Amino acid sequence: MAIAPWSRLSADEMQLLRTTFWSAGGSRHGMAEQLGFSRSKANALIAGLVEQGMLAEAGLQPSSGGRRPERLQLNDGLGVLVGVDVGATSLDVAVLGLGLQVLAHVSEPAEVRDGPGVVLARVRVLIRQLLVQCGLDARKVLGIGVGVPGPVNFERGQLVNPPLMPAWDSFSIRDYLREDYAAPIFVDNDVNLMALGELWRLKRSLSNFLVIKVGTGIGCGIVCHGEVYRGAAGSAGDVGHICVDQDGPRCHCGNLGCVEVMAAGPAITRMAMEAAEGGESQAMADTLKAQGRIHAEDVGQASRAGDAAANAIVQRAGSLIGQMLASIVNFFNPSHVFIGGGITRIGPLFLAAVRQSVYQRSLALSTRHLEIQYTPLGAQAGLIGAGVLAMQESLRVRGVAP
Amino acid sequence: MAIAPWSRLSADEMQLLRTTFWSAGGSRHGMAEQLGFSRSKANALIAGLVEQGMLAEAGLQPSSGGRRPERLQLNDGLGVLVGVDVGATSLDVAVLGLGLQVLAHVSEPAEVRDGPGVVLARVRVLIRQLLVQCGLDARKVLGIGVGVPGPVNFERGQLVNPPLMPAWDSFSIRDYLREDYAAPIFVDNDVNLMALGELWRLKRSLSNFLVIKVGTGIGCGIVCHGEVYRGAAGSAGDVGHICVDQDGPRCHCGNLGCVEVMAAGPAITRMAMEAAEGGESQAMADTLKAQGRIHAEDVGQASRAGDAAANAIVQRAGSLIGQMLASIVNFFNPSHVFIGGGITRIGPLFLAAVRQSVYQRSLALSTRHLEIQYTPLGAQAGLIGAGVLAMQESLRVRGVAP
Repeated sequence: MAIAPWSRLSADEMQLLRTTFWSAGGSRHGMAEQLGFSRSKANALIAGLVEQGMLAEAGLQPSSGGRRPERLQLNDGLGVLVGVDVGATSLDVAVLGLGLQVLAHVSEPAEVRDGPGVVLARVRVLIRQLLVQCGLDARKVLGIGVGVPGPVNFERGQLVNPPLMPAWDSFSIRDYLREDYAAPIFVDNDVNLMALGELWRLKRSLSNFLVIKVGTGIGCGIVCHGEVYRGAAGSAGDVGHICVDQDGPRCHCGNLGCVEVMAAGPAITRMAMEAAEGGESQAMADTLKAQGRIHAEDVGQASRAGDAAANAIVQRAGSLIGQMLASIVNFFNPSHVFIGGGITRIGPLFLAAVRQSVYQRSLALSTRHLEIQYTPLGAQAGLIGAGVLAMQESLRVRGVAP
Repeated sequence: MAIAPWSRLSADEMQLLRTTFWSAGGSRHGMAEQLGFSRSKANALIAGLVEQGMLAEAGLQPSSGGRRPERLQLNDGLGVLVGVDVGATSLDVAVLGLGLQVLAHVSEPAEVRDGPGVVLARVRVLIRQLLVQCGLDARKVLGIGVGVPGPVNFERGQLVNPPLMPAWDSFSIRDYLREDYAAPIFVDNDVNLMALGELWRLKRSLSNFLVIKVGTGIGCGIVCHGEVYRGAAGSAGDVGHICVDQDGPRCHCGNLGCVEVMAAGPAITRMAMEAAEGGESQAMADTLKAQGRIHAEDVGQASRAGDAAANAIVQRAGSLIGQMLASIVNFFNPSHVFIGGGITRIGPLFLAAVRQSVYQRSLALSTRHLEIQYTPLGAQAGLIGAGVLAMQESLRVRGVAP
C-alpha cells in the first residue's frame, strides 16, 4: 500500500484533517471549537498543516463582525478520490476532488448480472480514461470507494449472498482493483453510500435519518447516532422484503407480498404493461407499441400528462412503499427520510402518495417533525458517498502516526 | 442539587469510575487496557480512588497465570440507587447497590391510568419504606431512575402524548420527586430501560440488539452502536402500532390491524374469553367460571397442560409478533432479540412461534446468526435498567471536575 501524504502527522493534526474534511469550508474558529482546541493551539496546527501542503485557506467567509475568519479546506493538490457506483443496470464512475467536487464523470448502462469479471474490467477502463481526461496518473488517487447493490461484509470488502448478483458472492472487489492502484479501496452497499453522502452534505447536522433507494430493488441506508449503521451482519436496511400484503405475489426471495416485488421498478413496468394491454391507457399503449416495452419514466411522463391509469400506478407504488415506511418510522423515529434512485424521475405524485401513507399509518409523535423528500444530492448521492467513504476510511486506516 | 461524592475528581478519575461501573468486577489490568492508560498510570489512579473511598478491591479473580489481578468495584459505602418501574398495571420500586444488587424490592398492582398524583404519591411512600428497611436515609441516595410505559422527552424527564396514560402528558416526574431527594432524577421509557439493563449485564459486549416488551402494550428498546437509541423525537421503538393485518380489528390509535391490538395481553385475554364462551376449551371455561375472567397466565397454564385452544391462541400471538419482528429484523439486522414483559410467563410455545415466524419471513443473511430469547434479566430488567440509568447519568451530569 502506498504511503499516504498524511502518514507522518500527529494525532491532533489528523483530527484537524478529518474535521476539515467533514466541515468542508468551515472557519478556523469553528473548527477549533469543534475539536475543543484553544485558538492558539488550533492556529499553530493549522499553520503547520498549511505549510506542509495539507490544508489550504480558501477565501473569506461572510463576516459576523470583527476580523473575517478564513475558510479551511483540504489542499486539492494532495490528490483525488475515485467513486464507483455499481447499479443493477447501470455503472457510474467519477474522479472527485477532496471537497467532493466532480472532476470527471461517466455513466453508462451495465448488467450487474454479467458478473464481476465483466463489470469490473469496465470499471478499470473507465477509471483509467477519467484520470487521463483529468491529466492525472494512478499515483494521484488517494482512495477508491465502490458502491454495490447488495449486502456487503464491510471489513472484507466482499458481497455476501447478494440476491440480485449471485456471481459476485465473496468476490474480492478490493483485490481486483488493487492490481492497478496503490490507494486503499473500500466497498459498501450502494444505499449506505447514499446515506453517507447525505451525511457529508449535511455536515453531520442530522444524527438520525434514512435514505430509501427505489430502483430495480428497494433498499435503505440508516444513519444512527451520527454514523452509518450497517447492522450485526452488514445487512441492515434490507427493507425490500418487508411484507405489505400477505396475499400478494411471490417474490424471488420465496415469500409473498414483499414491497419490492409489488412496488419497485419492475413492478411499475409490469403494471404499466398490463394497463396498456388491457386498454386502460391509450398513452401507455402507444408507448408500448413504439418502444416494445414501458419504463418507469414513461409511466411518470403519462402521469404528469394526466393519464388516469398511470396516476393509479404511481399512487399504488407510493402507497405500498409508504406502508412499509410507516412500520420503519414507528420503529426508528427518524427526523428525515430521503428517497432516491430511479423512482425520483417518476414525478411528484409518488412522493405525495408515500407521505399520505406514512402520515396515516405512523404514530403522531413519530411524524410530527418528520420530513419526507427526494435526496438533495439526487442521482449523484451514491457517487459522492463513495468519495466520502474513500476519504473517511483513508484518513482512518492511514491516520496513525508512526 | 446535592454535591456528589465524585464532584471533585479529575476527568481521568471520572473515566475510571465509569469504566468500573460498566465492567462491574473487572480486573485492574483489563480496566487500564480499556482506557488506554499505562499500567502505572492506572495503578496510581486506582490507589488514589481507593484511598478516597470511591473504589473498593473485591477479592481475587481466577488467575490466568502470574500474579492474581484484583477485581475492582465502586465502593458500596458511597450510597445507593433507587429504581422505579411504572407499568400499565403494576409498580416496582427497588433500592439497589452500586453493583446493581437488589437491596430491597417491592412490587404491587397499580393503575397507571389513575394519573401521576396517585401513582407517584405511592412511589414516594414505597421509596421511603424501602430506605428505612435498608437502614438508610434520603441523603444516601445517589440517583433515581424511573421507567414509564410511554414515550418520554428524555432531556425534560416528561412523558409526551402517552397513549396509555394521557393524564401524565407533560407532567414533571422529576420536579415531583425532587421535593424529597437531592439526588438527580432521570426518566425514560420502560423498554429503553430494559435495554439499558441488558446492555449493562452484557458489559456492552453486544452493540446492536433489541428488547421487545409484550404486556398490556408492545414496545421495543433499541441498542445501536453500543448505546440506547431513542430516535429523533424520543419515540423510537414504538412498534405496537405496526400493521400486521390490513383487515384486522381497529386499534385505539385509530388504525386497523396493529400488532398490539391483535397480540398483546388484552388480545390474548379476549381470544381466551371467546374460546371459553364458545365451548372450545373446557379448561379455560372452568377458569372463567372460577375467576370471572381469564388472564394471559391462565392461557399459558392451559397451553402447557396441552389444551388445543390455548395452544392455538399462544401460537397466533407469537406468530403475529414474529411477523412484526420480521420487518424490524430486515431493517435493523440485530444480533439478538430479547423478549420480556408479562408474556414471558405464557410458556415456551410462544417463543417457538415467534422464532418460526421471523425465520420464515426475514432474509437469510439477517437471521443467520440471530438469537431470539427471553430477557436474561427477566422481570427485573426494567428495575436494573432504572438503576443503571440513575448511575450512568449521575456520573455524567456531576462528572465534570471544577
